[in-house]
Amino acid sequence: MKKIKTKQKITLVDVAKEAGVSAITVSRTIRSPHMVSPKAREKVEAAVDALGYVPDAAASALASNRTDVIGLLIPSLTNSVFAEVLRGMYDEIEGTPYSIQIGNYRYSPLTEEKLIRTFLCQKPAGLIVAGLDQTETSRKLLMEASCPIVQIMEFDKGPVDSMIGFSHFEAGAAATRHLIEQGYERIGFLGARMDPRSQRRLAGFRQELKSRGSLSAERTVTTPEASSVGLGAELLRELLVRAPDTDAIFCNNDDLAIGALLEAQRRGIRIPEDFGICGFNDLEISKQLNPGLTSVATPRYRIGGAAIKTIVRSLETDSVTARKRLDLGFEVIPRGSSILNLERKNAQS
Amino acid sequence: MKKIKTKQKITLVDVAKEAGVSAITVSRTIRSPHMVSPKAREKVEAAVDALGYVPDAAASALASNRTDVIGLLIPSLTNSVFAEVLRGMYDEIEGTPYSIQIGNYRYSPLTEEKLIRTFLCQKPAGLIVAGLDQTETSRKLLMEASCPIVQIMEFDKGPVDSMIGFSHFEAGAAATRHLIEQGYERIGFLGARMDPRSQRRLAGFRQELKSRGSLSAERTVTTPEASSVGLGAELLRELLVRAPDTDAIFCNNDDLAIGALLEAQRRGIRIPEDFGICGFNDLEISKQLNPGLTSVATPRYRIGGAAIKTIVRSLETDSVTARKRLDLGFEVIPRGSSILNLERKNAQS
Repeated sequence: MKKIKTKQKITLVDVAKEAGVSAITVSRTIRSPHMVSPKAREKVEAAVDALGYVPDAAASALASNRTDVIGLLIPSLTNSVFAEVLRGMYDEIEGTPYSIQIGNYRYSPLTEEKLIRTFLCQKPAGLIVAGLDQTETSRKLLMEASCPIVQIMEFDKGPVDSMIGFSHFEAGAAATRHLIEQGYERIGFLGARMDPRSQRRLAGFRQELKSRGSLSAERTVTTPEASSVGLGAELLRELLVRAPDTDAIFCNNDDLAIGALLEAQRRGIRIPEDFGICGFNDLEISKQLNPGLTSVATPRYRIGGAAIKTIVRSLETDSVTARKRLDLGFEVIPRGSSILNLERKNAQS
Repeated sequence: MKKIKTKQKITLVDVAKEAGVSAITVSRTIRSPHMVSPKAREKVEAAVDALGYVPDAAASALASNRTDVIGLLIPSLTNSVFAEVLRGMYDEIEGTPYSIQIGNYRYSPLTEEKLIRTFLCQKPAGLIVAGLDQTETSRKLLMEASCPIVQIMEFDKGPVDSMIGFSHFEAGAAATRHLIEQGYERIGFLGARMDPRSQRRLAGFRQELKSRGSLSAERTVTTPEASSVGLGAELLRELLVRAPDTDAIFCNNDDLAIGALLEAQRRGIRIPEDFGICGFNDLEISKQLNPGLTSVATPRYRIGGAAIKTIVRSLETDSVTARKRLDLGFEVIPRGSSILNLERKNAQS
């Protein structure tokens, strides 16, 4: 049985005794291991393990003026998009003294604001936030923070400090152009959640069709609900009621696109002959579908890695010269959901 | 341009002046808001916002002996399983003074150990960890922690403190029995990663077949690689080379099962007539597939909620009476990938 609040706290002095070294050596091993000989460090680490000693981070943070924690605030963890970003971050951070702590604000700007406050309180080594659309208060907190800040996922105007991402407007436009180039003429848009980045993709879609005079309001079906595969099926049903002659769709993400594709197949609609589909994010499953789903690959893994690298460099150089403004781009990946006889076309090109 | 480390720090006294209240009122509003009148609280909150004041968590933690942060350590964030757990946690924590911080140890027990140390250093309000298979050092740290600990996702022997989950062994056995009951006779197993919970599901599968004398070693195909839809397709190809007469599979998770289903369809194998498939986790996409994927629904959302509730109660009562040992069970959800004429069968029962 676990005892709660009865055990006597193990101190630095206990560890020093166990290791047979001075207390200051223990303290240095924990806070500045490079100042200690490998042999002493080994002894201290063994003693720390044996006693289950937990150094006091609060006292340590007061002394050193920052922790080794990089904070990450993201709008969703139930969304496979950020999973890849995280993978890039964890791969990059390996072997550094830093660790990542994550806060999830579930697309609520006020929760994001609260979390920015909580995280900055803990004196992080750096803070990574998603996008450029924080509240005014959040922006103020970020501007005044005494650690490097990286805004990820977007590349647009007005970053606080570093910014690493790509243009969602351009990506939406490119996906739409791809469908137009395949000969589709009455193209619709399915969107859920409609956060700022989704709005920018929709704006790119609209501009592309508007400039060709083929934008039609009833072909844009969006909902504030969270994306899911089931919702993609629902939105397609709605679209085909509103505008039955629609011959292609650009979906705000692959979850919706997969749902739409499976629903179209249930209805006996031929893909891509009678109906073309393009998703967004290029999830792992998308190329496995029958037919494969055309999608827009985004550099999520590289964004994650570059964000960590930027913070680590900023801390090493301790100056604004490490600041990054990186546009990592995107790529339309054509597959069977929008291209007939894909193999033949590829062989020709 | 953001300035780094030049701004003068805003203090409690500045906030008090701006709000027209005493410094102690500001301090109370931040640390014990229930001790302050709503009117005073409003003034202070407005001043905090206006000045962008960030209370010092390190000093605050030293004073109060714990923070309002609940730590969560999970083995993966690129895996949709934990997404639902998180949703349950965030729904439950809303309206409480607590917030969640997440550490991801990527299935490395030593990284988990390091993160347990880091998190305990920060004096969390509670700590949630996944499973029961921590290292000896990790277990020791957890046993000696002065905050409530909840081990989630499993229900088995030897929890440290609270435990909320279900039996993976029983779930693996139940999925296997389901396939046997549908008349499948040569059942295989596809597994990836093979973490301790996956091992327990495999053990349940093996026991079920062994007791019927139909366990065959070449029908178990596993890999230490991470699960993905593409990997499910690969593992099915491997299985059908090793044991071409296999007539059903239990897959360690839905990602693998979806990949296997799509690969079987590419090969013209009829599902469920010639080949039955059962997944695990019952992801949102599984019921959308054509045919729908039979799977084992696990109470991930409820596990997340119950874990937060347990910690909040422990803090309120400050005693071991709030400790929970909850087996939340699981359910096999039969769909078209293992049941012929599902509608007719349902109508009969």
